[in-house]
Amino acid sequence: MRIAYQGELGAFSEAAARLVHADAELVAYRSFEEVFGAVDAGPASYGVLPIENSIGGSIHRNYDLLVEHHLPIVAEVELPVVHHLLALPGVGLGDLRRVYSHPQGLAQCERFLRTLTGVEIIATYDTAGSAKLVADDHLIDAAAIASARAGEVFGLMPLASAIQDFDDNITRFIVIGRRPLDEAPADKTTIAFTVPNVPGALFKALSVFALRDVDLVKLESRPIPGRPWEYLFYAEVGSARDELRCARALAHLAEFAPMLRVLGTYQSWKSRQKATRSEMAP
Amino acid sequence: MRIAYQGELGAFSEAAARLVHADAELVAYRSFEEVFGAVDAGPASYGVLPIENSIGGSIHRNYDLLVEHHLPIVAEVELPVVHHLLALPGVGLGDLRRVYSHPQGLAQCERFLRTLTGVEIIATYDTAGSAKLVADDHLIDAAAIASARAGEVFGLMPLASAIQDFDDNITRFIVIGRRPLDEAPADKTTIAFTVPNVPGALFKALSVFALRDVDLVKLESRPIPGRPWEYLFYAEVGSARDELRCARALAHLAEFAPMLRVLGTYQSWKSRQKATRSEMAP
Repeated sequence: MRIAYQGELGAFSEAAARLVHADAELVAYRSFEEVFGAVDAGPASYGVLPIENSIGGSIHRNYDLLVEHHLPIVAEVELPVVHHLLALPGVGLGDLRRVYSHPQGLAQCERFLRTLTGVEIIATYDTAGSAKLVADDHLIDAAAIASARAGEVFGLMPLASAIQDFDDNITRFIVIGRRPLDEAPADKTTIAFTVPNVPGALFKALSVFALRDVDLVKLESRPIPGRPWEYLFYAEVGSARDELRCARALAHLAEFAPMLRVLGTYQSWKSRQKATRSEMAP
Repeated sequence: MRIAYQGELGAFSEAAARLVHADAELVAYRSFEEVFGAVDAGPASYGVLPIENSIGGSIHRNYDLLVEHHLPIVAEVELPVVHHLLALPGVGLGDLRRVYSHPQGLAQCERFLRTLTGVEIIATYDTAGSAKLVADDHLIDAAAIASARAGEVFGLMPLASAIQDFDDNITRFIVIGRRPLDEAPADKTTIAFTVPNVPGALFKALSVFALRDVDLVKLESRPIPGRPWEYLFYAEVGSARDELRCARALAHLAEFAPMLRVLGTYQSWKSRQKATRSEMAP
């Protein structure tokens, strides 16, 4: 099994891909688009993509790509995020003039970064990529914010550890694929829909779930390019798509939603954890 | 009147601030936080901040800062976004090895950027700041994506003009301030609220507006730091906060919402445009 992820070795996505399947061959790609492309075109069976962080919020680009491509979500995994300030051996806090990381990494360590003075904060495309930059360019006045594993991979030492502002910093990843990942029974469904441009339309859309006691776990809005201030909604529903109440709610929504697509139905990470725990119980 | 904005001279925020008041003294700050700080502490009477782009979506950081600070929204303005590829005089498209811009600027010109080959795309904190970088460091193999005004300010020439993927690329800015901006009657209200962590709670929250025919213009969710997968909702309502139906809806929401705050009630940009037009009519 080959799993595609975005970023360098040591990226949080690599650790998430490892959680999906311990023995899979992991293949790194530069961008989220390329991960979708690898699964679409075949070199990878599955792709692992961050979809939401408990501090920073949704990774909107991946919601957009789910609609552009036709690859369903087949599972989700959660990963606690622990950031470290990493530099070349021998470099001290006082030597630093620049700190590199992904904007989400920088945002998640805001309080720590404020304690550094005279240091330029530079946004990059990847946390582990920042560690690679510091190592490859042998920067002796710079550090990267990235995972402990990125430090190991690129030979950097932690100047400060667990520097994220909140301990409850968790990233949720989705797994996309052309085939189901396993036999685990689905209990969650992700959909995308639009509503007619009339007052009360979103309320009506939510009513199809609420009136059937189908739980709406998450609701997200995204602009529709070329139609200013009109939105595409993403919803996560706490039921399998073919569960009777959920199937009826979706049919009801389709009666008046100009667009409705099911982006995947899969087992939630919580249920997956519980199942693993009970398997391990004596 | 002194108005604070984020970015360099030539930033889109500077143009938005100019729309708010043609004769105001405009003061540039490095970050959104500093704009809030300047209005909080007094050096500026008003601050202008981007809140949403019709292609890229919400600027979440500013929603977060509205809740952290207690400065109300007093107005909103809209600005069409036109991006140009700017380089030093004499530099041609074939010379380019790097293109700098804010991630939103890069995202908004994705199709154009794909036509460039062998060029590294580098994210920075500011569109106009990228133009400044190219000019200050005299980069003869780089270009910036920024406004025509940023090109004028920093002495760069357009290698390509109006390179944004969509013509309907509009950024909406809010104006924050300790006092009302003018006498314009409010017809819009922005609120932040949480809902109890039970199924159907969001539906119930929207019902207080829908059952009173109060239009919900926009709904946005943001994670609550330290409480994974719980959300703060931001809503824009198409009524003044003291209009009877809206006041009753807000009182109804307060009955069961653990947290509810009005972030401002103000005249919508659409109404403001209409008022200006009718004043100008013969």
